[in-house]
Amino acid sequence: MAQTFPLELHPDRLFPADPVVRAIAQRLYAQIKDLPIVSPHGHTDPRWFADDANFENATALLLLPDHYVFRMLYSQGITLEALGIRRKDGAVVESDYRKIFHIFAKHYYLFRGTPSRIWLDSVFHDVFGLKVTLTEETADLYYDTINEQLAKPEFKPRALLDRFNIELIATTEGALNDLTHHAKLKGTGFEQRVITTFRPDDVVDADRADFAANVAKLGELTGEDTHTWQGYLQALRIRRAYFREHGATATDHGHPSAITADLAEADAAVLFQRCLAGTASSTETELFRGQMLTEMAGMSLQDGMTMQIHPGAHRNHNQVIFERFGPDKGADIPSPTEFVSNLKPLLQKYGNEASLNIILFTLDETTYARELAPLAGHYPALKLGPAWWFHDSPEGMLRFRHQVTETAGFYNTVGFNDDTRAFLSIPARHDVARRIDCRFLAGLVAEHRLTEAEAAELAYELTYGLVKKAYQLQ
Amino acid sequence: MAQTFPLELHPDRLFPADPVVRAIAQRLYAQIKDLPIVSPHGHTDPRWFADDANFENATALLLLPDHYVFRMLYSQGITLEALGIRRKDGAVVESDYRKIFHIFAKHYYLFRGTPSRIWLDSVFHDVFGLKVTLTEETADLYYDTINEQLAKPEFKPRALLDRFNIELIATTEGALNDLTHHAKLKGTGFEQRVITTFRPDDVVDADRADFAANVAKLGELTGEDTHTWQGYLQALRIRRAYFREHGATATDHGHPSAITADLAEADAAVLFQRCLAGTASSTETELFRGQMLTEMAGMSLQDGMTMQIHPGAHRNHNQVIFERFGPDKGADIPSPTEFVSNLKPLLQKYGNEASLNIILFTLDETTYARELAPLAGHYPALKLGPAWWFHDSPEGMLRFRHQVTETAGFYNTVGFNDDTRAFLSIPARHDVARRIDCRFLAGLVAEHRLTEAEAAELAYELTYGLVKKAYQLQ
Amino acid sequence: MAQTFPLELHPDRLFPADPVVRAIAQRLYAQIKDLPIVSPHGHTDPRWFADDANFENATALLLLPDHYVFRMLYSQGITLEALGIRRKDGAVVESDYRKIFHIFAKHYYLFRGTPSRIWLDSVFHDVFGLKVTLTEETADLYYDTINEQLAKPEFKPRALLDRFNIELIATTEGALNDLTHHAKLKGTGFEQRVITTFRPDDVVDADRADFAANVAKLGELTGEDTHTWQGYLQALRIRRAYFREHGATATDHGHPSAITADLAEADAAVLFQRCLAGTASSTETELFRGQMLTEMAGMSLQDGMTMQIHPGAHRNHNQVIFERFGPDKGADIPSPTEFVSNLKPLLQKYGNEASLNIILFTLDETTYARELAPLAGHYPALKLGPAWWFHDSPEGMLRFRHQVTETAGFYNTVGFNDDTRAFLSIPARHDVARRIDCRFLAGLVAEHRLTEAEAAELAYELTYGLVKKAYQLQ
Repeated sequence: MAQTFPLELHPDRLFPADPVVRAIAQRLYAQIKDLPIVSPHGHTDPRWFADDANFENATALLLLPDHYVFRMLYSQGITLEALGIRRKDGAVVESDYRKIFHIFAKHYYLFRGTPSRIWLDSVFHDVFGLKVTLTEETADLYYDTINEQLAKPEFKPRALLDRFNIELIATTEGALNDLTHHAKLKGTGFEQRVITTFRPDDVVDADRADFAANVAKLGELTGEDTHTWQGYLQALRIRRAYFREHGATATDHGHPSAITADLAEADAAVLFQRCLAGTASSTETELFRGQMLTEMAGMSLQDGMTMQIHPGAHRNHNQVIFERFGPDKGADIPSPTEFVSNLKPLLQKYGNEASLNIILFTLDETTYARELAPLAGHYPALKLGPAWWFHDSPEGMLRFRHQVTETAGFYNTVGFNDDTRAFLSIPARHDVARRIDCRFLAGLVAEHRLTEAEAAELAYELTYGLVKKAYQLQ
Repeated sequence: MAQTFPLELHPDRLFPADPVVRAIAQRLYAQIKDLPIVSPHGHTDPRWFADDANFENATALLLLPDHYVFRMLYSQGITLEALGIRRKDGAVVESDYRKIFHIFAKHYYLFRGTPSRIWLDSVFHDVFGLKVTLTEETADLYYDTINEQLAKPEFKPRALLDRFNIELIATTEGALNDLTHHAKLKGTGFEQRVITTFRPDDVVDADRADFAANVAKLGELTGEDTHTWQGYLQALRIRRAYFREHGATATDHGHPSAITADLAEADAAVLFQRCLAGTASSTETELFRGQMLTEMAGMSLQDGMTMQIHPGAHRNHNQVIFERFGPDKGADIPSPTEFVSNLKPLLQKYGNEASLNIILFTLDETTYARELAPLAGHYPALKLGPAWWFHDSPEGMLRFRHQVTETAGFYNTVGFNDDTRAFLSIPARHDVARRIDCRFLAGLVAEHRLTEAEAAELAYELTYGLVKKAYQLQ
Repeated sequence: MAQTFPLELHPDRLFPADPVVRAIAQRLYAQIKDLPIVSPHGHTDPRWFADDANFENATALLLLPDHYVFRMLYSQGITLEALGIRRKDGAVVESDYRKIFHIFAKHYYLFRGTPSRIWLDSVFHDVFGLKVTLTEETADLYYDTINEQLAKPEFKPRALLDRFNIELIATTEGALNDLTHHAKLKGTGFEQRVITTFRPDDVVDADRADFAANVAKLGELTGEDTHTWQGYLQALRIRRAYFREHGATATDHGHPSAITADLAEADAAVLFQRCLAGTASSTETELFRGQMLTEMAGMSLQDGMTMQIHPGAHRNHNQVIFERFGPDKGADIPSPTEFVSNLKPLLQKYGNEASLNIILFTLDETTYARELAPLAGHYPALKLGPAWWFHDSPEGMLRFRHQVTETAGFYNTVGFNDDTRAFLSIPARHDVARRIDCRFLAGLVAEHRLTEAEAAELAYELTYGLVKKAYQLQ
């Protein structure tokens, strides 16, 4: 019989070893660990909740959509074809899901020290009740156990929402999305619980090949003449209202940089025409994206939607992978991001609006203490989103709190985002954030920088209070 | 009766929880905690010490001058008008100091996790003897208790200098300042204890609207023809000598970047004329500031003054606030700062002078390990100033020591600067620095990287020895 | 009698104070501390091993070649002349080695808190058996004790290789080096143990005054016409083969930036001619170096050599020191380094080659989490070298592991490099790395992020397994 190792989730995992600090962390965590999950930013598929069908199998659910997983496997020489990632040219790739799961199991040791390991072990243990670690020897046990359970009614998406104690989850849809799945939820009792988010990148990014077509489609959907600057803006306002009808309380903007602009109306109109005509330079398309961030802030001031800015990812860095497999294959790389000069036009116009909620994210941790905390600790319109993407990890979260808190305080932050399409890992991700926040607070208590009563209040705020306020969910 | 919570300053605050490290930190701290305070760089008002009048009231003393405090309140939607900050247009702002203090008290929880909280609690507890925490419920108690004590003779500025055990405090004055207040101190026994610092930004920064007028005034004050390059330089030498007569041992330079230049004399003279005439481009005014840093280093070599360079703040980032309230309202934001190329012209000329003391500060922590420690660990003329402004905090100080020490050592640093106009918080600020330094040293001892005897020597140096040497105060 | 202090190396040095974590670190360390040293990248003199003569004396061996040591002394005002560093103009410098050693001893306290202190104390204690600390009082004892032992047969270089348990050590030679010393090792039994590394900077960097002469010499050595682009490339292939015959398994590239290029062949040929003719601009010479990195990656794909890229040092920042004493005098300063855009041309061409081993190093720690870990956690061709140069220190190594591991994992790293010419310190340097790695792993175990069995496997890999794989030494 193959050797197996027990899989255990220690109750004190992620707490510091020091017994004084650990004991404080335990007490703080006990008070907030069972609070409902509020997930205001993520990428789960709304179809899951609309159709409420059982998930297919372990490989399709846990591996294929998770670029954290296959980027690591790929970095160690395993081809994406062997992992069953669909090629754009239709070439044959591995289709034996069990075989793919075996490759994953055999290389599971590569994830040692990574957050993927923490999330996956939690899913295996807590969601599927597995009690041995994943190795090549236990791959079949895993694959069969998971698939067997996925077929059960209590593993349907809506049942899992209940089991996971998810009070609210926001998905993210492009501006042209018809929101079919969200519409289908109306009347089910889930329409308040599964909401959308307005993501207009496809109609504001003139570097995209389909930009003009997207703007045209925006016109069709709204009955506005989107070939004019004012018609285009009005169409965006209409779509924002449509998204709000499907629950959206927030917009999201994924731009290469944090550049903003505040052009005179006539200049903006000319720039828009150049973008539509495809004659804009890359400097001009960047300027246009920057102008649109400022326009969106203005619309948020009018319609009250919270605005999320996610800048700084160099998308599809690996051209070969992009051409062969498309986007979101683990080849997005962070790049240096500047906020102080870049945000100035937007902030000059709207930064002093206390009713505005603009949430900033970064992949460049050097900006935490140098730029973001000073900005958020001054401008009423700004708040700081949690550690993002590559930094959504125990060490990344600790760096965020250590570098942001002294200048921005806790109350200019907005709680946790899981930002994931890996639905089953959502409880684990929130649990990591709760543990790390309690650990950070416990350190402050142990060093007599906070009282334990204050830390308990803060633990509640970081887990539940601030997110509801920032995303206007109460 | 309203609920109150005890205010306690734990004797082990800011020490790590680990009992071994804490015990070492306690022993080190016990040896240096009562050393006199040497404050070689700050912004207290010399009038206080010259006139020795009682301070007005809690709000005017503790809140209105402290941009750390009102930037946080402003970030959470409280207007500066409500906090009684004077508007430039003379519009009415809140003038009820008690009411303003109530707003502060009600929102005091916002400072949890910030250094302001540590400093303020220390002032409340140690200076005013308050034993309950500040909340809306205790606001009147606080306001009355503080005001009552401020009216007493033992709370006059000179009495507080004694009580605080301040051996020396340096204020900072512009090059055109007549130093009236320092002059008034002559013969009082305080003239060695309250000294000035020469800050020539207003006569070297040609981006200022009043630059030409300032240079003209410099000519009047010195009897030099400051419309010529040589006359201008000579006038600066004369002002430096005047400041030295009022105790100054150092100059201070607050520039947007660390750019330096070493132009040929004829080129410098032409550039100066363009700056005077107001025809210089922004690149040229930056070059001129850079040239003046090198000129100032040359003058320091002659007259022996220590030179402090504080680069990298984006001043008055919030245009609305600047226009309405003026500078220093919490809207200065750090920006990325480059030292290696920028300082090269100055260093090429003067970097190898062992008799020169140039102290570098930064708001960009990424330069600690990458640029500043390598530079200071090589050039005889360079030393590193302590963690500055947003980074003058427990975590900021720890990052400084962790990132600087291995390459620059301890002996290329210069002790602590409080850099504050919040006079009453000076003991608390120095105490934080002493605790954090002892904590850092204790960690090295616990890990057998230093002996405890060495750490005790270093604790003395970091608290008292190095500052006196770097600022030539012995 | 002068006062002396005992010199002790605590068995738990560099382990954290917390007893739980320390105990785990002790257990992990016990399992790997006696593994052989594999040193795949360094700068020891191959003549030592070829001639196997005794070293001269303490000063010549320990101080004069160690720019870490004299940069610190120089920063505190001690001239390089007083330290006996040879001037290029032949001017007299201190030649009394005992006197120089006394200066060093008197100022040894300056190294408190630096890695040099750790390495030197280890050499004094473990290699020479000294039991008191180095001070002015013990300088003669040290100098005599060390010199006496250096004269013994068991202190000859090959004997020390055995004593230090060095399984393999790689030196670094320029492309034009005749590898005499390595050739001399053939048949001695040391030819597998002391190998060379191919470093072609002198024939690819057209900013060097001797570039054209070097390329001409490359032609003579290989019989190729290096005045043509193809002849030049072929000559490089021939030299690479020659180095491989002398044991080389790797190349090394020290460039000012990480710029790479992938020019069309005709464009590259034209650029090469401009470089040869000395008419290339600095942008063009940079482009040429970038092109050559891509060419070298292509050659590595053919001949299987591991490729090391060391970018980002601003060499010879201190012009005065460079003119007076030459390079490598402690005046190299790190500068900001960008990888994501700069490496793209090379990665687009070769990044997906799983058989390629390209090892990236940085002096800019901000790139660890932001750029390097994401790149290495995706591209099969990339691995991350250990913390380099100024960051080869306890804190630097901890920052590396903390910032890299969560995204790149452990298996995209390559073990430790000592990168030193200080031969006697090699065991101490590897020991520091082993202790810090065990400490880092112990922290993960104590926080239940790894099992101790996994940590033990990883400790072996980080010490011995990964380096042999990355440098193809098995």
